[in-house]
Amino acid sequence: MTELVIREDRGAIAHLTLNAPGSLNALSDAMLAALKDRLNALAQDETIKVVILKGAGKAFCAGHDLKEMQRGRDSADQGRAYFADLFARCAEVMQMIPALPQPVIAQAHGIATAAGCQLVASCDLAVAAEGTRFGVNGVNIGLFCSTPMVALSRNVPRKVAFEMLTTGEFIDATRAREVGLINRTAPHEALEAETEALGQTIAGKLGAAVRIGKRAFYDQANLDLAAAYDHTAAVMVENMLWRDTNEGVQAFIEKRKPDWAED
Amino acid sequence: MTELVIREDRGAIAHLTLNAPGSLNALSDAMLAALKDRLNALAQDETIKVVILKGAGKAFCAGHDLKEMQRGRDSADQGRAYFADLFARCAEVMQMIPALPQPVIAQAHGIATAAGCQLVASCDLAVAAEGTRFGVNGVNIGLFCSTPMVALSRNVPRKVAFEMLTTGEFIDATRAREVGLINRTAPHEALEAETEALGQTIAGKLGAAVRIGKRAFYDQANLDLAAAYDHTAAVMVENMLWRDTNEGVQAFIEKRKPDWAED
Amino acid sequence: MTELVIREDRGAIAHLTLNAPGSLNALSDAMLAALKDRLNALAQDETIKVVILKGAGKAFCAGHDLKEMQRGRDSADQGRAYFADLFARCAEVMQMIPALPQPVIAQAHGIATAAGCQLVASCDLAVAAEGTRFGVNGVNIGLFCSTPMVALSRNVPRKVAFEMLTTGEFIDATRAREVGLINRTAPHEALEAETEALGQTIAGKLGAAVRIGKRAFYDQANLDLAAAYDHTAAVMVENMLWRDTNEGVQAFIEKRKPDWAED
Repeated sequence: MTELVIREDRGAIAHLTLNAPGSLNALSDAMLAALKDRLNALAQDETIKVVILKGAGKAFCAGHDLKEMQRGRDSADQGRAYFADLFARCAEVMQMIPALPQPVIAQAHGIATAAGCQLVASCDLAVAAEGTRFGVNGVNIGLFCSTPMVALSRNVPRKVAFEMLTTGEFIDATRAREVGLINRTAPHEALEAETEALGQTIAGKLGAAVRIGKRAFYDQANLDLAAAYDHTAAVMVENMLWRDTNEGVQAFIEKRKPDWAED
Repeated sequence: MTELVIREDRGAIAHLTLNAPGSLNALSDAMLAALKDRLNALAQDETIKVVILKGAGKAFCAGHDLKEMQRGRDSADQGRAYFADLFARCAEVMQMIPALPQPVIAQAHGIATAAGCQLVASCDLAVAAEGTRFGVNGVNIGLFCSTPMVALSRNVPRKVAFEMLTTGEFIDATRAREVGLINRTAPHEALEAETEALGQTIAGKLGAAVRIGKRAFYDQANLDLAAAYDHTAAVMVENMLWRDTNEGVQAFIEKRKPDWAED
Repeated sequence: MTELVIREDRGAIAHLTLNAPGSLNALSDAMLAALKDRLNALAQDETIKVVILKGAGKAFCAGHDLKEMQRGRDSADQGRAYFADLFARCAEVMQMIPALPQPVIAQAHGIATAAGCQLVASCDLAVAAEGTRFGVNGVNIGLFCSTPMVALSRNVPRKVAFEMLTTGEFIDATRAREVGLINRTAPHEALEAETEALGQTIAGKLGAAVRIGKRAFYDQANLDLAAAYDHTAAVMVENMLWRDTNEGVQAFIEKRKPDWAED
């Protein structure tokens, strides 16, 4: 049986590949379950410091599996319970990404639409091939991208998000970087290497520091200024008291490489 | 009697024109009342899917009517009650725009200053003629643009808003697009057509989907991630259960145009 | 004894210079105390309308004093109490900047790293010499920039902040302006004049209006729309009732310069 989400570890970087190219890696029930399983396993895996998420075939991800959704209507409630469960499961997976201890980098190419665009927005970082198109185009078929909007509108300015959501029009990778949806672009043939390089940069840091930093990043985002400082100051005290941070700071002062126990 | 806010419907798009060119479409008491009436009527009008808001004459809108405000001082309380009422009425109109069921597009030209800039910021989308200047320049006359700041600071980065507010300096349309205050620019002679085209794009969507989407957009904006997903997932379930959405999704799968009952 | 933070007033503008060039103006215990004292004095000083904050020597500020921090470990609790106190004092100083009545402009050159980058982000406005590099690079030594993140993530888009924090990489002044961390760039030799010019522009406004405006700016930032309008509408009513604002509005109507009592 073909795996729906392939995991390949290269050193401290786990590469997850959505592997349903025939459906443009649609987030079917099975795909969501497979992705959830992979993320759950990674959350427990202390050998992995960075996760890269990509898609097999021509596209990163084209959103939900519409044919499967339509089949969900064949029930006494016309699919109400199924849809509620589906969107809850999808939202759960999306929220697992910022909650994952490791930074997650989307490596996007081709198209990232609807829940596929939401996936990019939900990742901590994103790199895209030049020419990649991003859209939340459910509105074109009468299904407004209300859940993708949650992630998108926390990445890009308000009017940019509103335009994408109501026109259903695509933006390209260059514009996506301008507005904050992605971090970097690369020629298609260099996408893999560029994303890997970004991952390696982060994987080269003290993993424990990146982990508490990522967690604090989202924890403080919606707090008022005083509460955010109280929270993060406490985080920094703990960080300072680690053996490896002591060593890292001392090594910097002595202009030598740190000898970290972690690695 | 000349109408202060002209309404002209073209198909499913209502064009509202602020029509006091002699005062650069100042938001006088009468203008605010007229605009409120127009928005109230539109909120009940299911034939209209998009609203375009523009100004007659040389400018979009130059803010409050300063002469009228000065006359408000001629009272026992030096105008306190009048000013409180004025700013409450103005804030009410500004908040009616995101609350309106239909997307509202500002079509700006000339200048959009103070409450006129606030009006652009309050719209869901904005298109501006090249060369249009935007400013919150009340500070130049000793009246800090505190209420315009509410809308502006929810559109653009913090330091950009602070600079505009404290220097009173203008930004042009190109910069306004860079920072998120507007969506698109057009040569002056193409402004009307460009804005209309954006309106037509949105008016071509399933209106019910755009309406629930717009509402959800603002409802979820300030919620934390979990609450935002709970809210929007419920919106998507309702959206999926509509007859026209079922038809829209099915038509997409069958690669044909949807036969929507709505239109 | 050399002053750690030099204050030089030029008209209504106070120039504060971090003056420990040998340590790249590190935020040592003494530097934080000196800066706190300067800010406390300025908060009471009604002759000053704008504050410019800069650094002596090759850099704006390179963050905390790492050698001093390491010495803090020499205690029974390995420095826990000292670090908690240090980060609390640092966060207090950072929060004094938006709380200060006068706008504060960072004038950055060379590098602004870690808490030095936080200082730029905490200022209301920032001008930087071309070539200035900004980074939150504590992660490179195992100390995630959790408190700098609070200020940074309230200035720039989410993914931009996350990238800077987890890669430790610098962005230059041009990119810093694109993402909202600074307002303006200038050639190195023009930096002082450009920052001074921005300061003069603001110092030329009615100081009382700028003060209530700055306060309202931060007070309304996290409120929901209705509460933000209630708050700022009340601010505008008070503003309108000042003698100098009456004069400013009237002078504008009469196309003459205002005769303000304040100045």
